[in-house]
This record gives sequence, structure tokens and C-alpha cells, in this order.
Amino acid sequence: MPATADKLAINTLRGLAMDAVQAANSGHPGTPMALAPMGYVLWTKFLRHNPKNPAWLDRDRFVLSCGHASTLLYGLLHLTGYDLSLDELKAFRQWGSKTPGHPEFGHTVGVETTTGPLGQGIGNALGMAMAERWLADYFNRPGHEVVNHRTYAIVSDGDVMEGVGQEAASLAGHLGLEKLICLYDDNHITIEGDTDLAFTEDVGKRFEAYGWRVLKVLTGEDLNGLESTLHEATHEPCGKPTLIITRTIIGFPAPNKQNHHDAHGSPLGKDEIAATKTVMGFDPSVAFAISDEARERWEVCLERGALFEFEWNARFKAYREAHPKLAGDYERWMNGDLNGGWEAQVPLFAAGEKMATRDASGKVINALALGLPNFLGGSADLGPSNKTVIKGAASYSRQVAGRNLHFGVREHAMGAALNGMSLHGGLRPFGATFLIFSDYMRPSVRLAALMKQPVCYVWTHDSIGVGEDGPTHQPIEQTMSLRMIPGLHMWRPADANETAVAWKCAMQRVDGPSAFALTRQNLPVLDVTKTASAARGGYILEEGSTTPKVILLATGSEVSVAIEARTILESQGIPTRVVSLPCWEIFSAQDATYRDSVIPQNIKARVSIEAGITFGWHRFIGDGGASIGLDHFGASAPAETLFEKFGITPENVVMAAKGLL
Amino acid sequence: MPATADKLAINTLRGLAMDAVQAANSGHPGTPMALAPMGYVLWTKFLRHNPKNPAWLDRDRFVLSCGHASTLLYGLLHLTGYDLSLDELKAFRQWGSKTPGHPEFGHTVGVETTTGPLGQGIGNALGMAMAERWLADYFNRPGHEVVNHRTYAIVSDGDVMEGVGQEAASLAGHLGLEKLICLYDDNHITIEGDTDLAFTEDVGKRFEAYGWRVLKVLTGEDLNGLESTLHEATHEPCGKPTLIITRTIIGFPAPNKQNHHDAHGSPLGKDEIAATKTVMGFDPSVAFAISDEARERWEVCLERGALFEFEWNARFKAYREAHPKLAGDYERWMNGDLNGGWEAQVPLFAAGEKMATRDASGKVINALALGLPNFLGGSADLGPSNKTVIKGAASYSRQVAGRNLHFGVREHAMGAALNGMSLHGGLRPFGATFLIFSDYMRPSVRLAALMKQPVCYVWTHDSIGVGEDGPTHQPIEQTMSLRMIPGLHMWRPADANETAVAWKCAMQRVDGPSAFALTRQNLPVLDVTKTASAARGGYILEEGSTTPKVILLATGSEVSVAIEARTILESQGIPTRVVSLPCWEIFSAQDATYRDSVIPQNIKARVSIEAGITFGWHRFIGDGGASIGLDHFGASAPAETLFEKFGITPENVVMAAKGLL
Repeated sequence: MPATADKLAINTLRGLAMDAVQAANSGHPGTPMALAPMGYVLWTKFLRHNPKNPAWLDRDRFVLSCGHASTLLYGLLHLTGYDLSLDELKAFRQWGSKTPGHPEFGHTVGVETTTGPLGQGIGNALGMAMAERWLADYFNRPGHEVVNHRTYAIVSDGDVMEGVGQEAASLAGHLGLEKLICLYDDNHITIEGDTDLAFTEDVGKRFEAYGWRVLKVLTGEDLNGLESTLHEATHEPCGKPTLIITRTIIGFPAPNKQNHHDAHGSPLGKDEIAATKTVMGFDPSVAFAISDEARERWEVCLERGALFEFEWNARFKAYREAHPKLAGDYERWMNGDLNGGWEAQVPLFAAGEKMATRDASGKVINALALGLPNFLGGSADLGPSNKTVIKGAASYSRQVAGRNLHFGVREHAMGAALNGMSLHGGLRPFGATFLIFSDYMRPSVRLAALMKQPVCYVWTHDSIGVGEDGPTHQPIEQTMSLRMIPGLHMWRPADANETAVAWKCAMQRVDGPSAFALTRQNLPVLDVTKTASAARGGYILEEGSTTPKVILLATGSEVSVAIEARTILESQGIPTRVVSLPCWEIFSAQDATYRDSVIPQNIKARVSIEAGITFGWHRFIGDGGASIGLDHFGASAPAETLFEKFGITPENVVMAAKGLL
Repeated sequence: MPATADKLAINTLRGLAMDAVQAANSGHPGTPMALAPMGYVLWTKFLRHNPKNPAWLDRDRFVLSCGHASTLLYGLLHLTGYDLSLDELKAFRQWGSKTPGHPEFGHTVGVETTTGPLGQGIGNALGMAMAERWLADYFNRPGHEVVNHRTYAIVSDGDVMEGVGQEAASLAGHLGLEKLICLYDDNHITIEGDTDLAFTEDVGKRFEAYGWRVLKVLTGEDLNGLESTLHEATHEPCGKPTLIITRTIIGFPAPNKQNHHDAHGSPLGKDEIAATKTVMGFDPSVAFAISDEARERWEVCLERGALFEFEWNARFKAYREAHPKLAGDYERWMNGDLNGGWEAQVPLFAAGEKMATRDASGKVINALALGLPNFLGGSADLGPSNKTVIKGAASYSRQVAGRNLHFGVREHAMGAALNGMSLHGGLRPFGATFLIFSDYMRPSVRLAALMKQPVCYVWTHDSIGVGEDGPTHQPIEQTMSLRMIPGLHMWRPADANETAVAWKCAMQRVDGPSAFALTRQNLPVLDVTKTASAARGGYILEEGSTTPKVILLATGSEVSVAIEARTILESQGIPTRVVSLPCWEIFSAQDATYRDSVIPQNIKARVSIEAGITFGWHRFIGDGGASIGLDHFGASAPAETLFEKFGITPENVVMAAKGLL
């Protein structure tokens, strides 16, 4: 094949990127232009994908971690034959188009993950490679390799600078994920100027230190170099993930703006685009030009893709015949469905006992693990405290793809990897840390919500109940601020049985993440016939002896405080209702009749009790209500002392309630 | 000096750590025990500090990044003569003691920063070393070295695994901060077990890749090795920060629990403590034992400290005589005071113009920089977008300690470094990124609030006004959730003049951080005589033509929407007040009379307008109010389209207001 045809194909991709950004009058042309040769070699010669079936289960996964270079991905999708029209590229960054400013999973076919916030893509790719490895270990049988694909990611300076990217790279190296291949776009340019301003480390050496194989391509224009390096990365397994460092020139071949940060985040401008097209041998007056010859070069992907899937279908047919049960599970899991019968495994807890909700969660996790072989997870080095260890299961290591994940002290990479595992499909992953450290992984949690991934978060030690560890470890504003992430189901269960309900709802959920704020300290176990209603997000846990004059609203460990306060109030002749509100998002989604039946508008004396910030409770307590909580940081002392000193006591609740009457 | 005396001193420190944790029945004994020799060598032979004056300006800074090893620090402080009594150690982790579970700045003398959340300490140490370097460059004169000290940090596996620690180490290497020395406690043990479970990278090689000098000590018990390595680190400058990797044994010399994760996070137990004391040659029946001989060994620090400060005082006296103006500035700045007259520099903006608040902030920053030579800052690679560049000032680089800081794409390390700079004293630093990426640095922001540091955050692109970049870049819940961090002043100014007020208040503040959510898009400039009241956090910006029937409450860019809506409502005969609420925390701290005068309880028809989550507004709008906002993620399209499509328009506000009447 003549090199000119390659060049034509590559320059066509560059033209689309330039033109789309110019049409939108906003975007990032320089990186797509620099990466067009890499995209071309990777997508037409290595990536095993089928543009006509973006959902083919055993496709290679591709992550554009530098999501601002979205026109590279949109151009690749269009040119290789995905269902993304040229008109969509012309509508780049416009309302209702399939081509948003950064790639969005679920919005555009062929986009495997939402990227833009830097570093996340490396973590997503880590998770995808972990999932592939796990599923291959679980499903493949001698002579039947039905799970066997790679994960490719293109990463930028920003991705390798971000902490989340560094954490993810460290864990990938530790696990020796040899089917993970990252292509590092080393362009020496950032928004503020040359990377020398802030970034002079030896990236290759750093990745070697993480346990990666590091290969180099001296210039991003060297197609042979790109091909031979990718060949080595894919054909010479070494038990390590591979980083391919490619020195590129941002904005190449724009005659005036290449290698300058002006090419990074703004349109090149009409004159520079015309000059660039002239350099490329294109008609400078034509926008979005795709010649038949260029199309032909790209569309080899159609034939390759059809063949890949055809071969795999034949392999899978043989697999189904030999291992029908496994084949059924594989398809079911990849479709996001769970094996049947798991709900029956979820334990009920006997009222009257005392148990921390983290302990209850640990029992539920182990019950779920019995019924759901693809349920797996772990902690950012707090497994014994978070109670997340699946008993009898192996650890996920370089040697064995077990179900106990060890993320190390890397909360943020954990969050990003969970997203990648979930996006890959086939698994239902959870991750854990102390609730206070949800702050360390918040950007990934937000992305899980944005991508509607049913990831679960086990966040224990959820209040001043932490006790002696002190204010650095005591969540105050975390629960409330997590309730604000659109689409996240933030649970704060009142006892062991509500914890079981929360887990059940989370596992049934398919359109978004769920989190559990769990106690370190023991709590009384409530009557399971009452807590069943927790699935509605909020419910009447204890009714007043007669028509209630007071409503106590509480979550988590403070529900017990409310129950004690109710006893006192009732003994003083004040009929009192206790409402448990374990998941505000679900409660708010109930119909108004139900919500009003739980919190009637005409009962104005309402007191909220939550060992956290009171900000946010006003919507439930209303103008006539009062809040018991903490609007300041905690302190280091035994938990009981803190609840007492900070006034989160039944006596204070009683006083507040009587003050409202 | 006989080695046995050293051993006695070290074992005394170990005994205090074991006994304090046992008394509290909670805490982390193993790491302090392992690090006791390192602490001894460092504090008695290298650290230039004066226990009798913990505020001595030119002291070396010491950061215990692994804050869970707090008894190491408390033991060191007590034994070397700081004002921390043995009774305080006995009250470890108890209510009201000076010895909380994790070290807290401002709570205990000699504690330079609050640690516990892992990785932060490396970032704090980076900031301290940056501050020292900057102040040395600014103040020192030939023959007058008045700023000349080192920053030492003890870091653990968790610290070097965390992304924030990795980012900080990369930036420290880039800047070649040779007075920064980190001692890495390489104990191979984490909470889940051996570090091999999740962490097998070559840490030394990674730090070399960052540009650090890496030295090794084969065992943490080798006092000569520790001493000679610290000697090399301090006496053989190489233009790089130094990492000293020391292989330690957690819990040493506990006969049964050493080198096991059981020694990490729980008391050793009475039997094991007795056994350990026997091994150490101590009376197993005595707790908190400190022999006179041991005391004597530690109290060399008193003599050394007095001498260090005496010498420095003489040096500073000569400096003051030669450079009185500089000496005055140095003392003033280190005391947290600003040079006079800066308020007059803050610009006023002419009403009627159009200006983005990020642009106004850029002008204020430059004005402040003129009046305040110790005001400095920068962005996580978004300077041109955040408008944070100080014109005419140098970049902070390996060569020059300029006032324009380049953090690279490392938001979290930026946050931690800002804390370190502020804690060091002498500087008023700010950092910048897009508001959406405040999530990446949230743990450091929380610590700034907890430590009451007057750091400033410039967070631009504060809503769907971002436009085409789409939902990954559009803050929805960020502003509201940041308002929940106790002690953070979260500003969302309505225009250029409110932006100037916000900056002025932030610079006047000495007891906590301030953040500014700023627009990308232009906004009308308001009348400066009105916006002056913004300093009260909330105020009547436009009064109704007669007694108002409607109150519109808004912040930031939506104040303009409220003003337009008011015009329509007034034209329809509905007297309407517009309240701007740029800083909820300050407004809530006003007296009730003022608050009621701005939002009178008897005017029930209140509409809030904010291009973000509505959750949280209920406290101001009350039961009779309505909210215009966004309770879902954004989209990629031009900003005006998004405001229109998402209904954040004057027309919708009018409709909502009329619906309430």
C-alpha cells in the first residue's frame, strides 16, 4: 500500500478535527491533529473492533483519556464506519448533537467512557483491563478463548501528571496487566505553555518504576515506528502493561501554529486552516472533505471488524456447545443481568441485637457473593475496617484474578477503576474506604453518576462515631454533599436491616451508582417488618400513639437517638412519629401523596437529627422545624463523649421538639 | 557518647507511644516504635528547632505526613522540651487533651500541620519548602542569611501511594527544592497486610524519575546509617530534594507483633507491652517511664535550640540594621500582617460595562500584587483561562522564585502546597483551576478550613456558562457542596464589583480560606455604591418600587437574570426586591435583625435563581418559595442555548414568582 494513501487518510482525519472545531468556534484542534497518525495505525491495524456492532462483547476497548481531543475520536468513529454521520461532526458541540465537547458514554456509539477530567481515563482503562483479565480467568476453558481482548488508552501530559493517573498506573504495574497498552502523547505543550514550566520528570522511568514496559516512538509521524512498536506491545507479552511514549507535535502540520499552545484550546482560524490544508495538499476552500480514496483506506475496518466478530461468533458457538452454563452466564452478565435467586440470600437480622452497619454490610456482601459470582470488590487498604473481605475468595493479584480487590491507598484510582470495570461489562464491582475519604475519589463518583454506572461504594466510619481518630477522620459535610451529586443514591441506613435493604436496592439498580454511609459503632437492630419500607427512601418507622404532634426525622445512627427521644416525648404525652430517611434521592422520587403521608405538611413541629451538617435539612423540616446536627468540625475523643458533648442526644431532641410546640 | 544512652532514649520514646495507645485503648503504636530511632537522630542531631520557642521564625519545619503515628510526634515534643506535659500524653485521644488522634495544627505547640489524610503532608512539605525558597530569595542579602531552613517530612507507604503525594513529589523534583528532605518509612506493612498485596513498585526509582536524590538506609535501627545519610542529605547539596528510604520493622522490638499489621492500628495489649519492655530492658510494670538519663539525652535539643535561635537573633539584628525596611516586612509578613495601603489599590468597575468575573478577578489580582509583594499564586495549568497571571512577575522555577506559580495539572498537590505555604508563614498564596476540578482538591480545601489558613481559591467557569465543554466541565453541585465545608467562605460574586469585594474580604480574613466561583461569560457591571454591601454576604441589591411582594434571591451570573425578571415583574405592577447572596457563610453570621431586614419572614413569595442544584436553597426561600436551578447534569452547547434550554431565564423566574402570589 502506498504511503501517500496512508497520509491522505490521516490528513483527512486532521481536516475533520480542524473543521469541526472551527465550525463550533470552540474546542481543541491541536491534539487530534498530532494524534491522527497514531489513531490511524491503531484503529486500522491493531484495534479489534467492529464498527457495525459497537456492542460486540469481545471487542478491544479504546479509551481517549485526553477527552478534550474528542474530534479525534469522532473522526475515527465516522471514518471507520460507526453510526456517526458527518452532519454530527458538523454539529460538534451543539445542542442535541452526538458530538459533545468531550466524549460521553451512552450518548455516542463507540464511546467506551466519558472523559475530559484528566487522569480518569487511565483509571478507567485499568478497570477495563482488570475486568477482561477476571472474566478471561473465569470463563475461558482449554480450547475456548472467548474472552481475549486488549484495552488501549491514549493519554496526555495532563493524564500522567494527575494523581489519579499515577495511582492507576502504579496499580496496573503491580497487577502486571499485560493487555493494557497506553499510548502517551508527549507533545511538550500545555495550556500555560511548554511543559517545562511545571513538568520535567522522566515519565518513562517513572512507569518502569511502576512495573511497566516502556517503548518509544521518536516522532508521531513515523507510521512504521508506530506500527512496529504496537506490534511489539501486542505480540511480545512480557507480563507487564505497556506504555508507548510518542513524541508528537501539537497542531501538526499547521504551518504557523504547530508546536504552540495556541493550537491547544482554540480554533486555528480560517487562514491557518486554509494554510494547513494547502500543506496537506487539500483544497483550502472545502470543509469536512473526505475523498473516496481516503474513505476506502479507513473502511478496511469494516472488513476487519466483520471478520473479527465472525471468528469470535464461531468460537462462541463452540463454547456454548461445550459449556452451555458458562456461555449463558457470560451473556447474561455482559448484558448487565444478575444470576437469579440472589435476593433470597440477603440476610435478615433479628431485632434487639446490636450491630454496626459496617458489620451488617460485611455479612450482606458475603451473602451476595454466594449468589452472584460476578460480584466483587475491595477497599483502598481498609478492608478489615470496612468489612469488605469476601471470605474464602482469593485476592486479585498478578497470579490470580480473585474477587477480593486490593486497591492500596489509592481511593481515586479505585473510583476510576470501578467505573472501568462496570463500563467493560460483566461485573458488579464495589469499592470501599472511610466516608471521609470519599472526598479523595469524588471526581470518579461524579463520573459514575454521569455515566449511570451501577457501581457501589462502601463508606464506613460515617460520623463523629469514628471517635478518637479526630476531626481529620470524622465526616461532617460528606453525606450531605454527596446527596447533591445528581443520580447518586446516597444511603445512610439506620441499622443492619436497612443496610440489607440498601444493598438490595443498589444491586437491583441498573442506571446509576449507590453509596452506603455506614457506622463504625454498634446500633440496635430494628424490626425487619418495619425496615422493609426503607426501599422507598423514607418511611414511618415509629408512629405516634395518637395523631402525632411531632415528627422526628433522622438517618443512620441518629435514628436510634430519635427512637429514644420519642419514648421520652410519648411518656410526656406528646404523640411522636419517627421517620427514617435512609436515601433522600429515592424518597424524593416517590409520588407526592406518599411523601406527604410520611411528612404531612400540617405537622409543623419537625426535628431532624443527623450527626452532620444541618444545611440541607430545611426542605424536610420546613419553616417551623429545628435541626440537631454539627455545623463545625469534630474532635478526638471516644465516640460516646462526642455525641454527648456535641449535643446529639435524646434529651436535646426532646428539648428541641418541645421548643417547637 | 555510648550507644546504650541512645538506645535508652529511643526506647523511652517507644514506651511512651505504646503506653499512650494502650491508655487510650485506640491508636497506632507500631509506626512510632519503628520510627523512634529516625525521630531521635533527626530531632536531636539535625532538626534546627528551639523547643522553648516553637514560633522561632527560621526553625526547620517538620511534617509527620503519616499522622496516625501521632504519638511519635507527641513523644518527640514532650521529650525534647516543648510545652506538652506527660499528663497530656496520658490523655492521648481524650476530650480536651492536647494529644488528639492525629496531630492538629493550632491545637498542640510544635505541630506544624494537621495530618492524617494520607499524602497531604508531602504536599504541605512541598509548600513549606517553596515558601522558604521564595522568602530566602526575597529577603536574604549578601552577608545576611536570615531565611535559611529545611523542611523535613516523614512519609509512609500510604503517603507515597496517594495521588496527591505523587503529584507533590513530581512538582518538588521539577522545582529542585534541595532543602526538602523526606524520610520514607518503608515498613512493607499496610492495614490489609503486606504491601505486596497492592504495592510492588520501585519507589526509589520513581522518585529519581521525578528528579529527586534517593538515599537508602538498610535498617531503621542503624543509627550511624541514619546519621550519615542525613548528613549527606543536608551537607551535600545537589539541586534536588532528597528521599531517604529506610527499611523499618513496624512494632519493633515487640517480640510477637513486630513486622505484622496487628501492630499498625490497635494497642499492642498489656502482655505484649510488658514483653516489649522486658526486651528493651525496662520495668514491665511501669507505664510512661522516663528516666533522668533518657531525659538528659533528649534535652540536648534545649541547648541546641537556644543556641540556634541566639545565633539567628544576632544575625537578624545585623540584618535589621543593614536593611530595616526588609526586616520590618519580614517580621510583619511572618506575623500574618499585610503591608498597609493595599485596599486602595483594589479597583472599582464602572457600571454598565460588561465583564466576566474571572476577568475582574484577574484585574484585582494584579492590583493586589502591586500593593502586596508577598501575594502570589497560580493555576493548575489553566492560568490563561483562570486569569491568574501576575503581569510582569517571574514564574516560580528552579532558577527563580517568582510570583507566578505553575502547578501543572496537579490540582490536589496545589491545594496541599497552598496549605504548606500558608502554614510556613510570610506569604499569602492563591491557587486556581476550573470550579469543576475543585472536586480534585477537596480534601486539601477541607484541611485549609480545619487549620484556619487564609488560602484563596480562584475557581472559574462556574456553571453551565462554560458552554460547549459539556457536562464533565460544568459545575452543578460544586458551589453548594463547597458551602458545606465548615469555615470555608465560598463566594459567588454577581459582577466585577462584587468580585473586588470578595477578594478584599478574603485578604482581610486571617482565620480561614476563601474561594471564588467566577464566570467565564461576561456579566453587566453593577453600581459600586450598591455592591459595597456584598461584604455582609447578602444584601438588598434592588429594592421594590413599593413594599415588595416578591423577593428574588440569586448569586453570581443569575443576579443579572433576577434583575431582568424584576424589571418585568415591576412593569406588571408587582413590587420586587432583588437580594444578592454572594457568600452564605458571611451572611449567616450577620445578626438576625440584619438578616431579617434582607429576607423578611413576612414576604413569603421568594424565588431563588442559581445555575446549580436547588438543594440547599430552602433555608432562604422557605416553605412558600420556589427555586430556579439545575437538578441534573449539563450538556454540551453554547452557553446561551443552555440557559435557555434549562429554563434559567427571566421569563421563567417571572412565571415562578407569579405562581407563588
